Amino acid sequence: MNFLEERIVKDGIITEGNVLKVDSFLNHQMDIQLFDQIGAEFKRRFEEKPINKILTIEASGIGIACVAAQHFKVPVVFAKKTQSINLEGEMYVAEVESFTHRCKNQVIVSQKFLSEDDHVLIIDDFLANGCALQGLIQIVQSAGATVEGIGIVIEKGFQAGGSIIRNLGYQLESLAIVDAMDEKTGTFVFREQKEK
Amino acid sequence: MNFLEERIVKDGIITEGNVLKVDSFLNHQMDIQLFDQIGAEFKRRFEEKPINKILTIEASGIGIACVAAQHFKVPVVFAKKTQSINLEGEMYVAEVESFTHRCKNQVIVSQKFLSEDDHVLIIDDFLANGCALQGLIQIVQSAGATVEGIGIVIEKGFQAGGSIIRNLGYQLESLAIVDAMDEKTGTFVFREQKEK
Repeated sequence: MNFLEERIVKDGIITEGNVLKVDSFLNHQMDIQLFDQIGAEFKRRFEEKPINKILTIEASGIGIACVAAQHFKVPVVFAKKTQSINLEGEMYVAEVESFTHRCKNQVIVSQKFLSEDDHVLIIDDFLANGCALQGLIQIVQSAGATVEGIGIVIEKGFQAGGSIIRNLGYQLESLAIVDAMDEKTGTFVFREQKEK
Repeated sequence: MNFLEERIVKDGIITEGNVLKVDSFLNHQMDIQLFDQIGAEFKRRFEEKPINKILTIEASGIGIACVAAQHFKVPVVFAKKTQSINLEGEMYVAEVESFTHRCKNQVIVSQKFLSEDDHVLIIDDFLANGCALQGLIQIVQSAGATVEGIGIVIEKGFQAGGSIIRNLGYQLESLAIVDAMDEKTGTFVFREQKEK
């Protein structure tokens, strides 16, 4: 097990309906030393890529992206989930359909902050069905920029998002892939990942 | 002028209706090196305080809080603005009225992550009328925790929030206080702050 899998085993909670709760260290209370380890690991996995910008989505992706950005020494842009009155000028807008919630959401980035010169690392905390991620990829493409890679903290391997994104040819690195979890015993099965 | 005031003069844009836009470095695209300077300055200003937790509010406060937290070596908790289905258990809820937008919002933090043992630094990117901040203070008080201080990146000195919070006796440190700005000339008047 790597440092993140160990932390999930220690502090992750499986609740009714196979929901994984990691709100004590990842997406409500945030362990910044862990974020720094996550950032260093993303840097190691995308060492070869000419990344000049990190793109994430509000809200819980922002903290991880900002701490990771210190390892890449690049700025972060975060996509907003609804039209905000404080955004001016032209926007890239991706409409994404949530299969789970049966609703449509807009993912929005100002055109000022993404251009065809950008080589983008997309970072988010969770990958399940991949809706938000598909919206972010769509936005990078609208800008004519390049998706150099995608860094995810926890992927739910038993949902479709990861396969879809890998099938599209992207370098998707998930630091922990949960292939199964058992609510009754509180145990996890992580996908084995080759050490690179 | 300090480093932040210089950056506001360089990259801040004053738009119609006296709106200050700093989305190229603070709250849409985020300059992580600047955030690190901001974090170091908060650490200097709250050096004497026994801070063990940073509290912020989604979305744009999260990045600053996380980078600042590295200087304090403490975890960050971010308050959510609406009830989220992924939060379980008991919540601290503050209802805050937005004077400007004439609507009510809920600010929510799980009770698991704030207790009477906590000494909290509240961090946010902007202070104008202070609604969000009042909600965060209310939540810290509900938990029986102590507000050790409040760190703000940009305060709009021509709006009431700053005076209200200082009148209540809190140590409020705003790294730049904009007392006036002129849309036509694009110029700013910053409040003079004593070097501590």
